[in-house]
Formats: sequence, C-alpha cells, structure tokens
Amino acid sequence: MSVIEASLLHRLADAADAETMPRFRQPLAVDIKIKAGETFDPVTEADRAAERAIRTIIAHEHAEHGVWGEEYGQTVGDGHHRWILDPVDGTRAFLCGIPVWATLIGFTEAGRATAGMMSQPFTGERFWANGDGAWHRRNGDTRRLTTRTDRDMSSATLHTTSPVKGRGSLDAGFERLASSARLTRYGGEAYAVAMLAAGMIDLCFEPALEPYDIVALIPIIEQAGGIVSCLDGTCAETGGAILMAGSSRLHDDALRLLNG
Amino acid sequence: MSVIEASLLHRLADAADAETMPRFRQPLAVDIKIKAGETFDPVTEADRAAERAIRTIIAHEHAEHGVWGEEYGQTVGDGHHRWILDPVDGTRAFLCGIPVWATLIGFTEAGRATAGMMSQPFTGERFWANGDGAWHRRNGDTRRLTTRTDRDMSSATLHTTSPVKGRGSLDAGFERLASSARLTRYGGEAYAVAMLAAGMIDLCFEPALEPYDIVALIPIIEQAGGIVSCLDGTCAETGGAILMAGSSRLHDDALRLLNG
Repeated sequence: MSVIEASLLHRLADAADAETMPRFRQPLAVDIKIKAGETFDPVTEADRAAERAIRTIIAHEHAEHGVWGEEYGQTVGDGHHRWILDPVDGTRAFLCGIPVWATLIGFTEAGRATAGMMSQPFTGERFWANGDGAWHRRNGDTRRLTTRTDRDMSSATLHTTSPVKGRGSLDAGFERLASSARLTRYGGEAYAVAMLAAGMIDLCFEPALEPYDIVALIPIIEQAGGIVSCLDGTCAETGGAILMAGSSRLHDDALRLLNG
Repeated sequence: MSVIEASLLHRLADAADAETMPRFRQPLAVDIKIKAGETFDPVTEADRAAERAIRTIIAHEHAEHGVWGEEYGQTVGDGHHRWILDPVDGTRAFLCGIPVWATLIGFTEAGRATAGMMSQPFTGERFWANGDGAWHRRNGDTRRLTTRTDRDMSSATLHTTSPVKGRGSLDAGFERLASSARLTRYGGEAYAVAMLAAGMIDLCFEPALEPYDIVALIPIIEQAGGIVSCLDGTCAETGGAILMAGSSRLHDDALRLLNG
C-alpha cells in the first residue's frame, strides 16, 4: 500500500474540481478587461487555481512532502515523498469544451509512483490507485479497474492524442504500430489512459510527456494489470516517449514495432 | 419552423439512449458464444437496436415519412419528408469507451435539413434544433447555443477527427488550414461539432462524411449562427468533404485555404 489514503486523494480532487468545473465551458465574457500584454484564458485560470487548492491541503496535512506542479514548479520536501500535479491535463480539450481533460494528482516514494488520482468532474468520474488495485467511481458506484489481456496486436485498439510527426525515428515507429493494430483513434488525452485501465483500449502511445502528465496515471495503469514504460523499457516516471499496454505481451510486441 | 416538434426529437433520442447506454463500456462478456463466421461487437448491437427503436416510433407516428438509416438502409416515403439516422456516430470512440460518440437524428424537407437532434447519453447531453434556434440541455438546464463570431484565423481553434492524409489535394489544403489556425485538436467526432455550435470551437473539418454523419448536425450549426458546406460552398446534405465554421468570415477564409 502507499502511505497515501484514498480519502486524501479524493479530498485533493474535490478541491481541484471546485476550481476547474466553474471555468469549463464558460466562453470568455465579453466585458472582461484584458490589459495590454496580459493573456487571459479560462484554462490557465483553472490550472492555477486548482494547483493552489491542492497545494494548500498538502501543505497543511503533509508539510514534509515535496510538491512539483505544472504551474508553480517545485517545492523541496523530505526528499522521499513527492506529489506530482497536473491540475488540468489536456488543455486543448478543456479549451474546446470536450470532457476528456483531467486533473492528475500523482504521488511518488523514492521516485516510484505509488498513488495516483485522475478526476474528470464534468462526467463525474474518478479513477485512482494507492496500492490496493485501481478503481473507478461514478454516481456513487465504485468498481475495480482491470485491463483486458486477451488481445493480440491484430485485434488491439491504439490511442494517441495527436498525430506523431516531426519526431524522427518515432514517426516511422508509430506508423508501424498503427498499421499493425486493429484501429487507431486520436484525441483522448488522459481519459484514454483511464479507458486502457478500464479494459476498453489496449495501447496508448504518447511521444512527449512531462513527468506531471504521466506520474498520476502510472499506479492506475499498473494496479489495473497494465504495463507502462519508456521506449527502452525503463520506468515511466521520467516522462518522455511513453508506451502503455493492457498486457505485458502486447507491451513487448508494441515496443518492438516502435523501436524498429 | 420545422414540421417536427422538439418533443418528438427527444422521444426518439430517449428510445435510442435506452439501447445505446446499456451497451456502452460493457466489455464483451467472456461467456458469449460467437458462432463461426459471426461477428459480435457491442457497438454494432447498439447501432442496430437504436435504429430499430427510432424507426418504430417514426413508423407509428409518421408512416408517410421516408427513413434512411446507416444500419437498415432506405425506406421510401412521401418523397418530401425524410429522416436521416446515424444511431451511433463515432463507433471508434464508442468502442474505446470515450463519450464523444452520439446518436444523430436528422430530418429533411425537400432535401434540406430542417431539424436535428444529437444525443450523448453518458454525459447526459442533448443538442437540437428545429427552426427556433439551437439548444443544449443537461441536468434539466436548457440553454440556447450560439457560435462565437469574434475569432479570425490566427485565433481560431480547429477540430478534425483523424489526420487528413491519403486524400490527394485535401491533404495539402488541410495542412494550410491547420498551420493558419491557432490550435488543432484531433478526435471529438460529432461532439466537436456540438462544441462549435456552443461557441467553444471555431472550425471543424471532416474530409469524408456520409449524409447520415452530417444531416442532423446541419440545423444545429446553422441555427446557432454557424455555416456548414461542402468545399464548393454548396449545401452539406450530400455529405463529402465538409467544412463547419462559427462565422461566415471564418468559413470563407477556411474555404480559401482548403481549396488552395
């Protein structure tokens, strides 16, 4: 088990939701004054306010923990426990009004991701893991997440957020993977990773993730039975080009195709 | 006004939702027997059952109307009134568990789309138009949809479902459009079109739509203030390569970029 209880993950997500939801789908009011040189957009406001809300609770309850958030950088802690936050992952989806963005709250112990929460407040969904399996909750109904493991490459569904291009050898690697899988879908962001944990998608590939884009999702994937790694097979906490799969066999096959 | 009342559009959507929702996110049960040569997938089942449910109501209430559905083909009617149905638009999204698929129920009079309904039952949303504006309903809250008209190309958001490639001159046209817009996002399917009507997205381009993919959405776009057409500027009911925009100025600019 992680040292972090699920109830704390949910309280952090509640605090973030209270900041993101009121700003989602609100077209910029015409009477908002923007000073010269200032930018204003609802997703930046949501990002910052949600990160502040999460940091406030962590500072109060675990002042010794380090925090690294996308918006406010790094706070050094005890060097062992660290929170990794992306208050609004999927800013394009948020800006477009499409509810596949998420608040990502990850926790590492000695560099390994041991607990994670993904919240999508518009659909009212939570996906989390803290050592005792991966879980989904919606409308008060909590269910265990399990990847599906019965697919080979020819029956696999593959997801990526945007077309992989301009990334050197990765372009050809992704092309090999996409042409081997049964179907490829674009878009989806963190929500697609949650669907991999739920056994609806078999492979997710993202060519350029930051640590705060992936750390919260690692425990959810792994504790649902899936595999996540960088392209050399090492652990994914560092970010970079990241491959996620529902089974180790499919992960091995996909790594071979990506690496050529 | 269309001859079709909003209450009928909602009853048709209710009947479809009752068939699609129970099949969404249900992994194929392991004990389902599939006979040799038969295919079974939940989205095909949802598609067929929802179309049957919609057709039953239309046949009962408007036996004189023609019906063209994706799954069960064409039923000839009075030659003037015709329903155009795509019970599950966005089958890849449905299969992947991502709630941007929709039930599309369109209605044409003398070939022109005059009423349309889009239902996304997982998010609990309805988007519709039947002559008196375009509307959105969720959790009992009904609001008028209005496109935003204050964006030029350099501040516009562009949406398409999959990368446009292998389509001849359209590939270069889309590249010109995407490099002129502020941001491009992939995925989204019919849901992205609804977000265009809601003023969250400025441009949607789809290179190869069937009539049943677009007819239901035409009244929603137009009655929210947007423009939808084929690439030669003619009406979109025929399907093909379809451009949707929040304003006529942006539509003109995007058409020029697409056509080169």
